[in-house]
Amino acid sequence: MSDSNQMWGGRFAEGPAAVMREINASIPFDKRMWRQDLRGSQAHIAMLAQQGIVDAGDAASIAHGLEQVAAYYEANGVAEDLTLEDIHMQTEARLADAIGPAAGRLHTARSRNDQVATDFKLWVRDAIDQTLAALTAFQHALLNRAEEHAASVMPGFTHLQSAQPVTLGHHLMAYVEMARRDVSRFADARARMNLSPLGSAALAGTGFPLDRQATAAALGFDGPTRNSLDGVSDRDFAIEYLTCAAQCALHLSRLAEEFVLWASQPFGFVSLSDQWSTGSSIMPQKRNPDAAELVRGHAGRIAGCLVSLMMTMKGLPLAYSKDMQDDKPPVFECHDLLGLCLAAMTGMVESATFRTERMRAVAESGFATATDLADWLVREAGVPFREAHHITGRVVARAEAQGLRLDELPVEDLIAIDSRIDARVFDVLSVDASVASRTSFGGTAPDNVRAAIREAREALS
Amino acid sequence: MSDSNQMWGGRFAEGPAAVMREINASIPFDKRMWRQDLRGSQAHIAMLAQQGIVDAGDAASIAHGLEQVAAYYEANGVAEDLTLEDIHMQTEARLADAIGPAAGRLHTARSRNDQVATDFKLWVRDAIDQTLAALTAFQHALLNRAEEHAASVMPGFTHLQSAQPVTLGHHLMAYVEMARRDVSRFADARARMNLSPLGSAALAGTGFPLDRQATAAALGFDGPTRNSLDGVSDRDFAIEYLTCAAQCALHLSRLAEEFVLWASQPFGFVSLSDQWSTGSSIMPQKRNPDAAELVRGHAGRIAGCLVSLMMTMKGLPLAYSKDMQDDKPPVFECHDLLGLCLAAMTGMVESATFRTERMRAVAESGFATATDLADWLVREAGVPFREAHHITGRVVARAEAQGLRLDELPVEDLIAIDSRIDARVFDVLSVDASVASRTSFGGTAPDNVRAAIREAREALS
Amino acid sequence: MSDSNQMWGGRFAEGPAAVMREINASIPFDKRMWRQDLRGSQAHIAMLAQQGIVDAGDAASIAHGLEQVAAYYEANGVAEDLTLEDIHMQTEARLADAIGPAAGRLHTARSRNDQVATDFKLWVRDAIDQTLAALTAFQHALLNRAEEHAASVMPGFTHLQSAQPVTLGHHLMAYVEMARRDVSRFADARARMNLSPLGSAALAGTGFPLDRQATAAALGFDGPTRNSLDGVSDRDFAIEYLTCAAQCALHLSRLAEEFVLWASQPFGFVSLSDQWSTGSSIMPQKRNPDAAELVRGHAGRIAGCLVSLMMTMKGLPLAYSKDMQDDKPPVFECHDLLGLCLAAMTGMVESATFRTERMRAVAESGFATATDLADWLVREAGVPFREAHHITGRVVARAEAQGLRLDELPVEDLIAIDSRIDARVFDVLSVDASVASRTSFGGTAPDNVRAAIREAREALS
Amino acid sequence: MSDSNQMWGGRFAEGPAAVMREINASIPFDKRMWRQDLRGSQAHIAMLAQQGIVDAGDAASIAHGLEQVAAYYEANGVAEDLTLEDIHMQTEARLADAIGPAAGRLHTARSRNDQVATDFKLWVRDAIDQTLAALTAFQHALLNRAEEHAASVMPGFTHLQSAQPVTLGHHLMAYVEMARRDVSRFADARARMNLSPLGSAALAGTGFPLDRQATAAALGFDGPTRNSLDGVSDRDFAIEYLTCAAQCALHLSRLAEEFVLWASQPFGFVSLSDQWSTGSSIMPQKRNPDAAELVRGHAGRIAGCLVSLMMTMKGLPLAYSKDMQDDKPPVFECHDLLGLCLAAMTGMVESATFRTERMRAVAESGFATATDLADWLVREAGVPFREAHHITGRVVARAEAQGLRLDELPVEDLIAIDSRIDARVFDVLSVDASVASRTSFGGTAPDNVRAAIREAREALS
Repeated sequence: MSDSNQMWGGRFAEGPAAVMREINASIPFDKRMWRQDLRGSQAHIAMLAQQGIVDAGDAASIAHGLEQVAAYYEANGVAEDLTLEDIHMQTEARLADAIGPAAGRLHTARSRNDQVATDFKLWVRDAIDQTLAALTAFQHALLNRAEEHAASVMPGFTHLQSAQPVTLGHHLMAYVEMARRDVSRFADARARMNLSPLGSAALAGTGFPLDRQATAAALGFDGPTRNSLDGVSDRDFAIEYLTCAAQCALHLSRLAEEFVLWASQPFGFVSLSDQWSTGSSIMPQKRNPDAAELVRGHAGRIAGCLVSLMMTMKGLPLAYSKDMQDDKPPVFECHDLLGLCLAAMTGMVESATFRTERMRAVAESGFATATDLADWLVREAGVPFREAHHITGRVVARAEAQGLRLDELPVEDLIAIDSRIDARVFDVLSVDASVASRTSFGGTAPDNVRAAIREAREALS
Repeated sequence: MSDSNQMWGGRFAEGPAAVMREINASIPFDKRMWRQDLRGSQAHIAMLAQQGIVDAGDAASIAHGLEQVAAYYEANGVAEDLTLEDIHMQTEARLADAIGPAAGRLHTARSRNDQVATDFKLWVRDAIDQTLAALTAFQHALLNRAEEHAASVMPGFTHLQSAQPVTLGHHLMAYVEMARRDVSRFADARARMNLSPLGSAALAGTGFPLDRQATAAALGFDGPTRNSLDGVSDRDFAIEYLTCAAQCALHLSRLAEEFVLWASQPFGFVSLSDQWSTGSSIMPQKRNPDAAELVRGHAGRIAGCLVSLMMTMKGLPLAYSKDMQDDKPPVFECHDLLGLCLAAMTGMVESATFRTERMRAVAESGFATATDLADWLVREAGVPFREAHHITGRVVARAEAQGLRLDELPVEDLIAIDSRIDARVFDVLSVDASVASRTSFGGTAPDNVRAAIREAREALS
Repeated sequence: MSDSNQMWGGRFAEGPAAVMREINASIPFDKRMWRQDLRGSQAHIAMLAQQGIVDAGDAASIAHGLEQVAAYYEANGVAEDLTLEDIHMQTEARLADAIGPAAGRLHTARSRNDQVATDFKLWVRDAIDQTLAALTAFQHALLNRAEEHAASVMPGFTHLQSAQPVTLGHHLMAYVEMARRDVSRFADARARMNLSPLGSAALAGTGFPLDRQATAAALGFDGPTRNSLDGVSDRDFAIEYLTCAAQCALHLSRLAEEFVLWASQPFGFVSLSDQWSTGSSIMPQKRNPDAAELVRGHAGRIAGCLVSLMMTMKGLPLAYSKDMQDDKPPVFECHDLLGLCLAAMTGMVESATFRTERMRAVAESGFATATDLADWLVREAGVPFREAHHITGRVVARAEAQGLRLDELPVEDLIAIDSRIDARVFDVLSVDASVASRTSFGGTAPDNVRAAIREAREALS
Repeated sequence: MSDSNQMWGGRFAEGPAAVMREINASIPFDKRMWRQDLRGSQAHIAMLAQQGIVDAGDAASIAHGLEQVAAYYEANGVAEDLTLEDIHMQTEARLADAIGPAAGRLHTARSRNDQVATDFKLWVRDAIDQTLAALTAFQHALLNRAEEHAASVMPGFTHLQSAQPVTLGHHLMAYVEMARRDVSRFADARARMNLSPLGSAALAGTGFPLDRQATAAALGFDGPTRNSLDGVSDRDFAIEYLTCAAQCALHLSRLAEEFVLWASQPFGFVSLSDQWSTGSSIMPQKRNPDAAELVRGHAGRIAGCLVSLMMTMKGLPLAYSKDMQDDKPPVFECHDLLGLCLAAMTGMVESATFRTERMRAVAESGFATATDLADWLVREAGVPFREAHHITGRVVARAEAQGLRLDELPVEDLIAIDSRIDARVFDVLSVDASVASRTSFGGTAPDNVRAAIREAREALS
């Protein structure tokens, strides 16, 4: 058989039945929700019993059977049996094996439509909780390194040009701010989604005397969803999870880009630990920042997951359509990728060796305190800012021509350019002075940075 | 000159300077933010004066000059003068014309980096406020029609197959739920973004004794951003606005799809008003649901706007990079499109003629009460649901073979299929009985729908 | 352990080494390329021997060893051993087990960078070949059904409004046209990518006296790539494959949408075979077009794959970066999904029962021959088209008011509207006459459709 | 009026008619196709006359009238009159003003559906022609600089780590390869799309005796489209144009990223001309690579355009739907952005000052010839590659520990590590020797690079 025939695994050779089984079956991926599925069924049967819809004996038998199924899955995993096309059918079949025909009462007043919406919401909610924990760990790593480097001078870049000196601690704290917004977004998404669709039945609700508040409470929801058609056809929660994740991944991609840059020979700002870098199969001298590159690359894949689900949902009429089965693969993939990205980035931040002398050297070499000179002219000599900007431009040109740093220029040269300058100006031309002077709220002065770290630690605890 | 040469307007013929001017200039789009730019400058100069950074006379002159510029823009619009590349430079140039060199003091302790971040946040915040108002109007339209049709029976679809009868009011209320989530998302985004970047300066903060709380308060922000690097390089708020908009557009695309379907001859569920449909240049009999189709299409464009900005932001190192100038066109385009979509959809909902007899006829023809029969067997005869499902399947097959509706089958036929059935079953086989029976919370029973409408109206006011 | 802890499989508990291993390892997905990897290695060692770079004995040993590895993989699959992080390391380790240290000579004058580029190109090329075969089968299915229904009248829709009658055969032939463009696109992509990167080494080429033409020829390439930096960092071929696939999936999504629409009760145009539809867990009467819905949904996922890789590649400097490892998951996922979509759609087309009487009835009911009346006025009465359009509008309004079809209106009514009309007009007002008259090239007249089918069959063979 | 009310321009205040007019009208953007629209109409009327469908006098009058309209548009532009909703209606209205009721004969046997498909194809074809010209200019710029620097040594990077020395000419030639693929893709797209939809009429073809070959030929098409339903509902050509553009933009984004990196102080590899960089409003020393950043950012926007149209087209039933009107804004936007990107990148390449001494210094400092040592061991000492790789690793460690370059290590140290090394090894350890040795086809040896430049120049002419 040729290679190309084997790529689709020969599976289409069996004809239409095999194709349909494969395109239709969700068990290869939805088996990941077995815990959530069982949790939902337990809540449902307990409520059916309490409401007298199923008698107590059958209900107890079902509840016990569900525990047996859980134990079985825990021990053996969930088989990818395509003839039992999804986790719901598979579990019901196992339950029937365990307890006989009474198993058939579990699906009373329920449809796979509300069942899968409930399972998937529970799964996404768990995924958010896990992501929130990972974001906390990431912030702790950043805060620890920021504290260590609250006063370490580095060049602050705009347009990747050395712009003004900042501290490494201040730089790392920018990522804490991003992480805080990520946390806030995930938390909002969690709160918004936390209504139970269980009891929406196929689409219209049901005539059985359900207690939807009870199942909602049992499953940790804040209450039931308010409209049954919406309950079974809403996938906002999955899309919103993906948007939060995509935004978070974009943040990580920016830090990853910086680690890649900083680890390059020309920058030399950071040395990644061996744990987070790899060698080359051909070049023995290489120490490649693979983890950072993969974090950066994964941002693309996570955005792809989001696009996938948005496009799938576009223009679907109410209520449930099978297209919605395509909600899970992108969410599952996204969650795995984001978990790896957060763990890897946390590890890289914790273990990186920052080469602060090199950072300082670059900060000192790029006329990065030119703004300080301009500001001094405004402040001390009353020059309008625009004019001060022009004077400073001439000073920079002079320094560049002479191959000197700004604080190495003779004061006479400065005075020759503008007579309002005097020797006091040297107080602001060093990178340390520059950094220390940025005391505006949110500015890079080391004391500010330390205060920001304290505030962020408190917010975190 | 050939057509193709004229497509790029011959502008590249002038050489590099023209290309650079055009790629670099943002004035063709950022002029849309002139009000926000002036608002920000007024807050800044007032604070500079209050803090003694600029003297009171110059500050008053600048404030007055800014008012003159506002009046000028209001009257004449903002010229797309590419040599004054952005709205900030253009305004400063006009200010200098108006008041002379003192204009140069306005930019003290400010950079275009924090200025544009502030302007754009103000713009996006205004856009959110406007969208929230439009979402309110949309909900009112839905609620009014839902109330009118709380008991109008229509087929509820899953997989676009007639599944169970619901009411049109219930169906429309599903969109109210979506709109409520949209409102909630936009509101969360607004709250999260509402911190002022002004005072972050270029990236490092400043040594001038700013009062960032004062400018934040003057501009309606809840406070200043906490990190200056983040302040100038954060575009989360724009991305989050786009994600909220994309989600909202997806909702609208679903309703638009339904309007297109429903207006087709085979469905015949709705007749769109002349206002929201158009004729054909060649087929005189056509009444095309153009507005609905465009709403559906615009969901694609809005998602494209989101992808655009996510991809642009991917992997950008801190702090500001010029790539970020590409944040505005997608946001502006999105806002225009979403505004049109919401207004059009509101208008279509308000003015549509729903053909409820046709809806009822389809609901009655598709065995849509089969689930009611199965539920009756569970409830009245104690049959396990799975078995009841199988019995009902046989009943449907019988009815289909005879060309009868379920409620037209002779009771003897039913009893022949399963002896536990009796004549009481006809109480549940009509679409009205079916709908009335769905009394579970969130279900389609007309009284439930009316209660849901009341609750939604209260939440809205 | 809580559910949420188990979602990431507890794998991060082991610490950084586990995270790095997992984020770095590609073996879980690149093992799919084992055949291509072995093919490439065989070509490489044969060339090394021929050029005298490796001696004949070692080369023979390596070639034999590679065959053993192939046999092993064929029998046992490829283990997901994360410590041998990719298919290249895994194969080299197996080879060393089989033949000892001589295995180390295989990697002479090669790097994983050119190796993986070669493997992946071979894989994508195979994927294209398979897709081309599937597109051929799809066209045959369409052609067969088109031939059967070359004269079956159905309503042609624009804006989903009944516009003009067409034949079902003509409608199906539109999809043949799309498939032909898909074939053409995949073929172009295949031709463009068919240059061998092998021999580019890590990025700079090599000093060993390689014969790159020889390895290219052995692997079925048209020649070697022309620049070594480009050779290892080019992923155009993967992106172009994804764009072709996305376009093809869009076509399939349109046909899928039509199958869903046509299978709905209000349309009733098609009855899907049992093979391609499923039942409901709660509604016994349902026959859901699941396969069509999944084809439609998969278009979103495939587009997501494309976005993923485009975003990953954006802004990567030369040459190889690890981000590029993220090229494979979207391509593999896309290929699996597209294969299923094509097979399912082919099966649905082959097995669908088209309800042509219902199609005809709808075509007759919607004034779909109004254009024919307008055209008759232009042709027979010399009326300018715009005026004819207005006259016809009045005729349609009259028919609509009286509840008649156009060809049921009394001739007196027609004459009363415009005296230039006479009884000959009835020759054009039936749907059959209308369809038969559309004889312009590409038009829907049954003879045209049959000619088009013949032409397409010839082009296919 | 509040700012937020003014953002949507108060336009919705006028009520539904205004909203519908605005959402429906395409004239604000489709006026860009006025030349193509007139070209199509001229071809159509000439054919109608030739076929005797319109008499010669009317046809001459129409042709003359169309010329008058062209002259008017050339002089005055096309008004954005929303009541004449699109370029077709606007032109027809102008024609009627010019020549009276005979204008109404132009639309015989044509619909806006085939008309707009034709116009838009002509426009996209023109856009491709223009892009091809721009890609040629870009290649010339690259080739000129590559020739100049065929032997200039720079560090070749993988993972942004200095890997092996290459020449700058070789590096630039990688982009020539990308551009050649871009050219090839655009050319394929052009050939594939070059069939005329004119004569498809609304969707079904027409009964008028058209000569579609004649109009196709007159418009430069290779022939007419083969299926009228496909003719009016196909937008593949627009999507394919966008995919070609997105791929091209990705290439440019990579080069742009490199320019940004290279222009940073730590790299210092390039100095951009003043023309392609800008200053800072606050930091007088800055020279920002704005143009390169914008090229990089625009890649995101262009990808967004592609996503937009793919999503819009997903799941649309045949034939024309109004959603398709959303095809033009993304294509127009893409074309403008790509034109700017190509022109800017061409200009940057032409005018950049490459700092080759700095490049060489970095190449020499990063142990970039380690692979050469390993290869020497394989070649001269018969060591298996894997073992050679390990020996070299030890050599690099020694050099790193002593702060020496590889070619500065005493030979004794080398021999101490492995006795098979001797002094001849120094022949391969310099960057010049390394580069000169990479003579494999496609390798970086200066003579190879020069040969590649010659080949590319020939292919271009």
